[in-house]
Amino acid sequence: MRNICMNVSYDGTAYHGFQTQPSNNTIQDILERAVRSLTGETIKITSSGRTDAGVHARCQVINFLTSSPIPLVRWCLALNTLLPADIVVSGARQVDEGFHSRRHALRKTYRYTIRCGKHPDLFRRRQEFYHPTPLDTEAMKSSLLCLIGEHDFTSFCSLRSTKISNVRTIYTASLACEPMDPVLHSYAIHICVTGNGFLYNMVRIIVGTLIQIGEGKRPSTSMLDILDARERAKAGPTAMPQGLTLWEVLYNNDQFTS
Amino acid sequence: MRNICMNVSYDGTAYHGFQTQPSNNTIQDILERAVRSLTGETIKITSSGRTDAGVHARCQVINFLTSSPIPLVRWCLALNTLLPADIVVSGARQVDEGFHSRRHALRKTYRYTIRCGKHPDLFRRRQEFYHPTPLDTEAMKSSLLCLIGEHDFTSFCSLRSTKISNVRTIYTASLACEPMDPVLHSYAIHICVTGNGFLYNMVRIIVGTLIQIGEGKRPSTSMLDILDARERAKAGPTAMPQGLTLWEVLYNNDQFTS
Repeated sequence: MRNICMNVSYDGTAYHGFQTQPSNNTIQDILERAVRSLTGETIKITSSGRTDAGVHARCQVINFLTSSPIPLVRWCLALNTLLPADIVVSGARQVDEGFHSRRHALRKTYRYTIRCGKHPDLFRRRQEFYHPTPLDTEAMKSSLLCLIGEHDFTSFCSLRSTKISNVRTIYTASLACEPMDPVLHSYAIHICVTGNGFLYNMVRIIVGTLIQIGEGKRPSTSMLDILDARERAKAGPTAMPQGLTLWEVLYNNDQFTS
Repeated sequence: MRNICMNVSYDGTAYHGFQTQPSNNTIQDILERAVRSLTGETIKITSSGRTDAGVHARCQVINFLTSSPIPLVRWCLALNTLLPADIVVSGARQVDEGFHSRRHALRKTYRYTIRCGKHPDLFRRRQEFYHPTPLDTEAMKSSLLCLIGEHDFTSFCSLRSTKISNVRTIYTASLACEPMDPVLHSYAIHICVTGNGFLYNMVRIIVGTLIQIGEGKRPSTSMLDILDARERAKAGPTAMPQGLTLWEVLYNNDQFTS
């Protein structure tokens, strides 16, 4: 069997998340159907992690075992021909048979985008959360820094999570603003968080809390108290999914040799 | 009567162009319906120029006469509440009663975007024309320069045009490339053209010809011969509408006082 690894970009707007569901309308379902059409095999796709309904990916990583002899250079073009326009695969490579795109992921980066100001950007409306009133981005920036390091993120985890440990390490957390758009009188705020793993809804709850800090509803020092409390109810609401994109997944390059 | 002028952005994907049609599915139809809902008046909207089906606008300019006493600061918010998510109005101002958004436009800029390389950018797929094989952008740049100045653009005008004169002035014409996207192995090419007016399909025929020059199917010197011929058949095909955006319309600022 060959273990094929690929990058997948998707616009999550029309899908019920990554992981297979009875609705069959998930990224995994669509990808598995495309591989079946191409090879005749019923395969199971593993990803670096599920993304929720409405969440996007710039560079999700997947792998699957196949006995198909299709040459590596053909996989992407062949699958993209079978996939809808909002899912694109790129960068196919053959990896060790033991490689697992979730278990071997070292770091993941998520990006959340808020459009702040007078008017939304309709060309990016599916990838931005629109917030019409001003946000104190300096307060948001300093709050983000409190998250860096190893912490118990129970306060930033959905109550529906079934994970045993809520301890994760955040390596970097930053906020950057695009220049003001002169027509829309609004600007995009990009929040990027890189960690060794993320709990269910973790980035969206962090962003929901940051927005309350940016609105002045919570002091910028509250992030540490929320972490210490280890209680979901202490954090802010779960931010809307459409602003969130799985940006990048990093692996030890040794695992890509075969 | 008050003459109200506004900017309008729209994603043209779902519409049959700007100008009213029996289908009622045009930007003008939707805007006129929104004003009717708001004020009870049946008004007629004038724009800086029609855009074709599938063509977008970052900053189209419209105006209409109304007897509504709604204060200027309320117009945008009130209309945006009534408009679909792919049409946004901004920057309402009251102008001279004689102001006409088409007749008084001094300069218009269109931008056409081509995504060139291995994979399309699915997040911008509705605003980019995807071209998988390489393009000689230097040859395209030098061809664009031939268009600057006053010329008879008959070769770059749809045969369905009913205009009397095909002479227009192009003030600037440029091509700029974004950096290569490391995941998609593709990049965006933006072609911007500013002129005192544009004929039916003019920018799309210019771009269709430029693409043939970029593909090496025509020499970069062919632009002048095509202009001289004054014959539509001498130019390239009409490029697909989704890459085209009406970017900006300039007026003499004196016309905005009232």
